[in-house]
Amino acid sequence: MLTTVLRLGFVQLRVLDLSAALVHYRDHMGLDLVNVEGGRAYLKAYDEFDRHSVVLREADTVGIDIMAFKLVSDQAVRDMIPELEKRGVTFEFIEKGEQPGVGERLRVHMPTGHQFDFYSEMALSDDGPMVKNPELWRNEPKGMRIVRYDHCALLGDEIDASAEILIGILGFSIAERVLDPEGNNIALFLSCSNKAHDVAFLKAPVKGKLHHASFLVESWSDIGHAANLMARRDIKIDIGPTRHGITRGQTIYFFDPSGNRNETFAGGYHFYPDNPTRVWTIDNFGKGLFYYEQEVVESFVGVYT
Amino acid sequence: MLTTVLRLGFVQLRVLDLSAALVHYRDHMGLDLVNVEGGRAYLKAYDEFDRHSVVLREADTVGIDIMAFKLVSDQAVRDMIPELEKRGVTFEFIEKGEQPGVGERLRVHMPTGHQFDFYSEMALSDDGPMVKNPELWRNEPKGMRIVRYDHCALLGDEIDASAEILIGILGFSIAERVLDPEGNNIALFLSCSNKAHDVAFLKAPVKGKLHHASFLVESWSDIGHAANLMARRDIKIDIGPTRHGITRGQTIYFFDPSGNRNETFAGGYHFYPDNPTRVWTIDNFGKGLFYYEQEVVESFVGVYT
Amino acid sequence: MLTTVLRLGFVQLRVLDLSAALVHYRDHMGLDLVNVEGGRAYLKAYDEFDRHSVVLREADTVGIDIMAFKLVSDQAVRDMIPELEKRGVTFEFIEKGEQPGVGERLRVHMPTGHQFDFYSEMALSDDGPMVKNPELWRNEPKGMRIVRYDHCALLGDEIDASAEILIGILGFSIAERVLDPEGNNIALFLSCSNKAHDVAFLKAPVKGKLHHASFLVESWSDIGHAANLMARRDIKIDIGPTRHGITRGQTIYFFDPSGNRNETFAGGYHFYPDNPTRVWTIDNFGKGLFYYEQEVVESFVGVYT
Amino acid sequence: MLTTVLRLGFVQLRVLDLSAALVHYRDHMGLDLVNVEGGRAYLKAYDEFDRHSVVLREADTVGIDIMAFKLVSDQAVRDMIPELEKRGVTFEFIEKGEQPGVGERLRVHMPTGHQFDFYSEMALSDDGPMVKNPELWRNEPKGMRIVRYDHCALLGDEIDASAEILIGILGFSIAERVLDPEGNNIALFLSCSNKAHDVAFLKAPVKGKLHHASFLVESWSDIGHAANLMARRDIKIDIGPTRHGITRGQTIYFFDPSGNRNETFAGGYHFYPDNPTRVWTIDNFGKGLFYYEQEVVESFVGVYT
Repeated sequence: MLTTVLRLGFVQLRVLDLSAALVHYRDHMGLDLVNVEGGRAYLKAYDEFDRHSVVLREADTVGIDIMAFKLVSDQAVRDMIPELEKRGVTFEFIEKGEQPGVGERLRVHMPTGHQFDFYSEMALSDDGPMVKNPELWRNEPKGMRIVRYDHCALLGDEIDASAEILIGILGFSIAERVLDPEGNNIALFLSCSNKAHDVAFLKAPVKGKLHHASFLVESWSDIGHAANLMARRDIKIDIGPTRHGITRGQTIYFFDPSGNRNETFAGGYHFYPDNPTRVWTIDNFGKGLFYYEQEVVESFVGVYT
Repeated sequence: MLTTVLRLGFVQLRVLDLSAALVHYRDHMGLDLVNVEGGRAYLKAYDEFDRHSVVLREADTVGIDIMAFKLVSDQAVRDMIPELEKRGVTFEFIEKGEQPGVGERLRVHMPTGHQFDFYSEMALSDDGPMVKNPELWRNEPKGMRIVRYDHCALLGDEIDASAEILIGILGFSIAERVLDPEGNNIALFLSCSNKAHDVAFLKAPVKGKLHHASFLVESWSDIGHAANLMARRDIKIDIGPTRHGITRGQTIYFFDPSGNRNETFAGGYHFYPDNPTRVWTIDNFGKGLFYYEQEVVESFVGVYT
Repeated sequence: MLTTVLRLGFVQLRVLDLSAALVHYRDHMGLDLVNVEGGRAYLKAYDEFDRHSVVLREADTVGIDIMAFKLVSDQAVRDMIPELEKRGVTFEFIEKGEQPGVGERLRVHMPTGHQFDFYSEMALSDDGPMVKNPELWRNEPKGMRIVRYDHCALLGDEIDASAEILIGILGFSIAERVLDPEGNNIALFLSCSNKAHDVAFLKAPVKGKLHHASFLVESWSDIGHAANLMARRDIKIDIGPTRHGITRGQTIYFFDPSGNRNETFAGGYHFYPDNPTRVWTIDNFGKGLFYYEQEVVESFVGVYT
Repeated sequence: MLTTVLRLGFVQLRVLDLSAALVHYRDHMGLDLVNVEGGRAYLKAYDEFDRHSVVLREADTVGIDIMAFKLVSDQAVRDMIPELEKRGVTFEFIEKGEQPGVGERLRVHMPTGHQFDFYSEMALSDDGPMVKNPELWRNEPKGMRIVRYDHCALLGDEIDASAEILIGILGFSIAERVLDPEGNNIALFLSCSNKAHDVAFLKAPVKGKLHHASFLVESWSDIGHAANLMARRDIKIDIGPTRHGITRGQTIYFFDPSGNRNETFAGGYHFYPDNPTRVWTIDNFGKGLFYYEQEVVESFVGVYT
């Protein structure tokens, strides 16, 4: 089944203090601020064409509001409806313009308690990558030199059901899975692209939680640079620089001022839908999480927003 | 239009001396030799699941025999036929087993004089990436640390016609194009994935020629390593280490013992089908080719096999 | 005062099982084995001219036997004697040939309980760096791609007294120091070169202990490579990849099969004797040790051989 | 013979337009501007303790005014005088304060026509590396991320005579030499540190010419970054990124707006005075100059200021 998803489009996160969040996401991470309106800040990375990929909403709670995917066409969005109805999955439409520059979105209430939005229209940024005799970049990447918003890992209970929607309706593939001794999935890494994952579900007896929002950097060198900058600017590193066994990504985890976990991510293999699914058993989960440490770090698993 | 192409699957090159070619592709580049049979050597890179991705055929001439793409299904291959017939494009079927482990292939005789094969079956390698509690790699990558076969650049006259087949029948996108002063395409960079290009066509008054076959390495660091190794082992470097404006890839060009041009390639942006096409004008072609040198190197453009 | 020390020349470590140690130091770390004789294995890194820089002695205990420095001349060695006598420091002579290829050594029994040898003669390796129209290296560096033996960190009680010998007699400089709240030195980083440190003393109520023996790799990229290889080959990583505040070095700590701690080290600033001494207060020691983690890791401080 | 040289301290270059030069050295290369006075701009790199390391003097001609070395003491400077007199080498004293913050300098008129200054006093920068619980850097390195001024290569006729002064009076070592078929030196690479070279002399029938002034960057990654930035900002690259056989340094050559050649340099081995001198024969000079290209580039050899 061919996926109709163009890409993971944007994430909307809740932050306690928008000003402090902008210092983090704009000044430290180096995202470009597009605009602030209605209590939300819109940002993008230097290598993204669309208007925005990160939305920060000031709120009294932290965590994730929306994980949003851009589909190839409005028809592809509409084609989801009978399939959702067949499965008894709740959905609604979010009107065009609820976010500046974004068309109508189909909001799906996922069994894990997350809101996934699907849309086909977003305005192009007027500050995206150059297209006429393009330079590498308009301006040298700054801060942590984030290339793009990359993926999210989400915590919830019904991870198989959420995954089935993405797989059965939209053609996602399972790149990797982690099994408990009974053979149940306790973590699923799903791809709708040539990335090792676009979204991961981690099983936990909660609804709608965020484990981390991840951002691509170019290389292990830039992972090192990001670590230097985090330490220099007193950004709390959760773990890293290290490497995942799962996805093979090189990584640092750290927190935004509201306590949402972020990741800078590099490397990771190139995935194709016909690749065999990589399977991890629970006794090797430590190595899967952190290939160098080879152990499950409790604070990493237990802390989320 | 959704592409039914899983990926660029393999290339078959002609070499004058198979033994010398194996020293180059296996020992220097670090590809794994799968087997040799019927005058052909089959190889693969460490991060590829399928049985082989590079075929070297001993012959009296050099150049490229086949550029082959794996499609999602046999049906997807058969669906090409009416479209080819509509366009009057010649094609034939190559029987299953003509290459070991490969199913039936639909061979299309492209207007540029190249043979493009389309297939949906290839045996999995028994030495591909690990899938159960996988390590980063079975063995540390060796030689130039090639990750995978990446793309080819081809020379021919009817580049628009060849591109139209890929675009119109298979859903390829034009990631970048180079225009002459009259607005004609003189180079087209086509993607059927999230790669900046899977195949490039360069306009020249010839038929069926190869400009280069390209192989992915992980990073600029590994580009440096490859350059060290080429110089140490007296492999003639054509140009590089340098960087392309087009695709933004970091690169070294060099030659195999038969004179076929190879490339080690890293970086390059992530492409999505809705990205605006990057357009280069002829006066900026030098910068597009080699971003650091900013000039067209005649020997680079004029030498091919 | 000009230093008469050419460089840190070699280290002799005790290991419980020489065969297992060779798998570690030769096969995993990638040092060249020079020879084995008299229960000792002699090794060197690819970029060292002298015959050997690492000596492994099979013994019933682990730890460090000798830290040895090459001086500019035999006279420079002899000039140490009156200064040692003035300070009441015990010394003796080790005869030429006690190690193959090494001339007479002046052995100083340091107040911290360590044996420091000083010598001026060692045979050149016949497998050292090329000198006539030299290639980068004879063979591509293998294993962890160790460039050279770099430094040791030693634990002992009388660190000021040991440091004074190196400073007062041999012209070492204090590059960095860590102070307790009373202003006493609890760690001293001493340089006799343009390296940030050639030897470090860490204060502890013990005699003659080794904290770690460190080996240079070329870059942060090679730190990442070393981490990959350690994890792949089940070498226990103690901590890292990370970075020191002290010396700014990029690092991984790990253990040899006998439990001696090793380090792969890269980066670090260039030191000159007129540089101001960097001073750390105890409350910042965590950041000094591990700039990214910013905390003292107890197992790191408390485990030694 | 122990060298009394602490390090290569500063270079004074002539530029045609000081404003344009500041855009280049400060904004593009990323050096810190210390001050401008008396028609000269004083700059330093982020990792240097002394007040300045680069002096740009606006003049009607381009090239090099002064290559200056810091010695361990005023006495060490004075000790040079009888040796200079013995050799009949012309010298003079430049009074303290001729450059802000710099003590009296002994100026030696070298046989190759260059002015070499020797001094023991320079004020510390108040913006040098931190020394109390130091961070990696005060601010993230900018522009080309230059770590320090590294070396110069100079053109002149009497290179043996100039070298003899440095070797015979100051204890420099010859790290590498290039010989013509008659066994005469045509290039000499001299070190007074653990660097592969602090100054190089290239034989040419001229007096007092500059081939290039070189600046250290941290790694091959930063060489790549510098190349990106040069191309983005239309700084003419002469050659590179590439690598030297001689010194093994990774390099890019480029020009300042006045036409003085600059280099960003990384890598290079660690030199010790007892290392055998590496010797190149003229037939391998191409590989010595550019290890990847393996050929002498005429414009590189023939263009200087």
